[in-house]
Amino acid sequence: MSHEVAVVPGDGIGREVVPAAVDVLKTLDVSLSFVHSEAGDKTKSQRGKALPDETREAVADADVTLFGAAGETAADVILPLRSVVNSYVNVRPVRAYPGVDAVAPKTDLVFVRENTEGVYSGIESEVADGVRTLTRVVTETASKAVASFGFEYANHNGYEQVTVAHKANVMRETDGLFLDAVERVGANRNASYNTELMDALAMELVMHPEEYGVIICPNLAGDVLSDLGAGLVGGLGLLPSANIGEENALFEPVHGTAPDIAGTGVANPAATILSAALLLEYLGHDEESTRVRQAVEAVLADGPHTPDLGGTASTESVRDAVIARLT
Amino acid sequence: MSHEVAVVPGDGIGREVVPAAVDVLKTLDVSLSFVHSEAGDKTKSQRGKALPDETREAVADADVTLFGAAGETAADVILPLRSVVNSYVNVRPVRAYPGVDAVAPKTDLVFVRENTEGVYSGIESEVADGVRTLTRVVTETASKAVASFGFEYANHNGYEQVTVAHKANVMRETDGLFLDAVERVGANRNASYNTELMDALAMELVMHPEEYGVIICPNLAGDVLSDLGAGLVGGLGLLPSANIGEENALFEPVHGTAPDIAGTGVANPAATILSAALLLEYLGHDEESTRVRQAVEAVLADGPHTPDLGGTASTESVRDAVIARLT
Ligand SMILES: CC(C)[C@H](C(=O)O)[C@@H](O)C(=O)O
Ligand SMILES: CC(C)[C@H](C(=O)O)[C@@H](O)C(=O)O
Repeated sequence: MSHEVAVVPGDGIGREVVPAAVDVLKTLDVSLSFVHSEAGDKTKSQRGKALPDETREAVADADVTLFGAAGETAADVILPLRSVVNSYVNVRPVRAYPGVDAVAPKTDLVFVRENTEGVYSGIESEVADGVRTLTRVVTETASKAVASFGFEYANHNGYEQVTVAHKANVMRETDGLFLDAVERVGANRNASYNTELMDALAMELVMHPEEYGVIICPNLAGDVLSDLGAGLVGGLGLLPSANIGEENALFEPVHGTAPDIAGTGVANPAATILSAALLLEYLGHDEESTRVRQAVEAVLADGPHTPDLGGTASTESVRDAVIARLT
Repeated sequence: MSHEVAVVPGDGIGREVVPAAVDVLKTLDVSLSFVHSEAGDKTKSQRGKALPDETREAVADADVTLFGAAGETAADVILPLRSVVNSYVNVRPVRAYPGVDAVAPKTDLVFVRENTEGVYSGIESEVADGVRTLTRVVTETASKAVASFGFEYANHNGYEQVTVAHKANVMRETDGLFLDAVERVGANRNASYNTELMDALAMELVMHPEEYGVIICPNLAGDVLSDLGAGLVGGLGLLPSANIGEENALFEPVHGTAPDIAGTGVANPAATILSAALLLEYLGHDEESTRVRQAVEAVLADGPHTPDLGGTASTESVRDAVIARLT
């Protein structure tokens, strides 16, 4: 069965790292077809819209999407695209890699983040002069979906620790519903897990990251805690992510457009190639997914390294080194 | 001029560390009178209410309050008490101390957290079966108040870096208002500052905490980021805090009731004594405040140390060591 991949490089280094990852996918023995679309700052200045309708449609029609990064328009691109794929969960593996400097080299975390609601609802208004409100939305349906995914992921990938992050002592009704729904899913599955206030968890992750595995969280908690995790393993540069929906999914590096180095050909393609590995796993190509991930890990360990890792290699030479280990 | 201090030890180790801090205050040449009140889990089981009206009134009537900690009822006690003192700002100095193990020994941060609104509004409802909402409130008035306090604090205490945390790319109207109000206060004061997305800031604080100073944040961002900061300096055990209002203020250690060691007489009173130092500063006793802080720092550096710092000393011997350095 052939799968269609929508390719949306976006802005800045997205235009360098996404093609590198596509080149890696093309060397594999999997049947993929690629459709290219545009989004981001440049698209906005050219066409008046950061996310043109045809890009939206291409993403909706494809089986999977590989997205790069968008600049100033990041939220205008990625939030609607997450809706287009109806993505109830954002998966962010945060791992320290041998060969890469990390504050906490034993870190191996996977954030499983609710991806559609919470304070990301977009419902805001000015209720009086100088007084504005935002409606934070939590549903049982989304909470259960992210919980099922999280427990299943932990099980499938051999993580023993599952932690549920929340702030139900303050957001009693909304995070109360989230927590309750997640706990019911956990109980139904006979899963073992802990619950932890998101503030306390932020402290614990800094002090003892090695004691955690899969972390199931509401949207904003996942946003902040996964970036905290990135800090533990040397920054956003190496983090892949998956936005999983019912019928399709979108994969993207967690990093941004890196305007300081965009166009110079030295962006690190590792996070995007690792995102491509997640894409392969989602499509059921587990073996190819593992091979790609291991090839990237080998290149991270032995080089060549781009400047962000202290080397002088180009994007293309890292791509070629990954491909050399695959063929 | 004499000042009245409401003393609310609360539950658990609050009942040990608050008396120790009061003993320290009593040795100083400042005119303070003390009024004791109850709140917390035990109060709830005895009187049906975690925060009895007379405690509320004692806190409202006093010039300042020294609070310990509450157990399960923490949110039922501390959130209303913050309202009672009409506390628009929560100040949390997060410092690494010589003699205390820290992930990041150069950390010297002060979180200046909006303390009344955001997702702490308490306005929640069930709008349909399995669908709940919370109204996040942001006002120009509170945003300006926390900004003025933060810039003034940085100035007065010699912090060069001021960072404004926000998530205005997603919460465009509400955090947009917060950010805009803070920036206008900064511009009026000719202050220099940076703004940073709270997720990116979480990463940066893990990687480069020494590059930050005062951090002005919305309520939940301050809650999470200050706990992250606690992780950098060895945990919540040593962090004092001040809830500042227009007419009075409440001081509390950031730690909780520590049920595992409560009653054994070995709780570390440092965070509460440091909170008492903030209380002295608030009342204008700057010199006594500095002396108390330095006495605690000296004891942290040279001992005696309670078990949380690897020692075997009791709460009382730490108290006595602090007092010995003051007299
Ligand atoms: C760009 C922004 C809207 C986005 C988010 O907040 O989800 C980003 O921080 C992320 O984590 O992917
Ligand atoms: C106990 C809880 C309501 C409180 C908060 O969220 O503000 C605590 O975490 C704090 O930071 O003082």
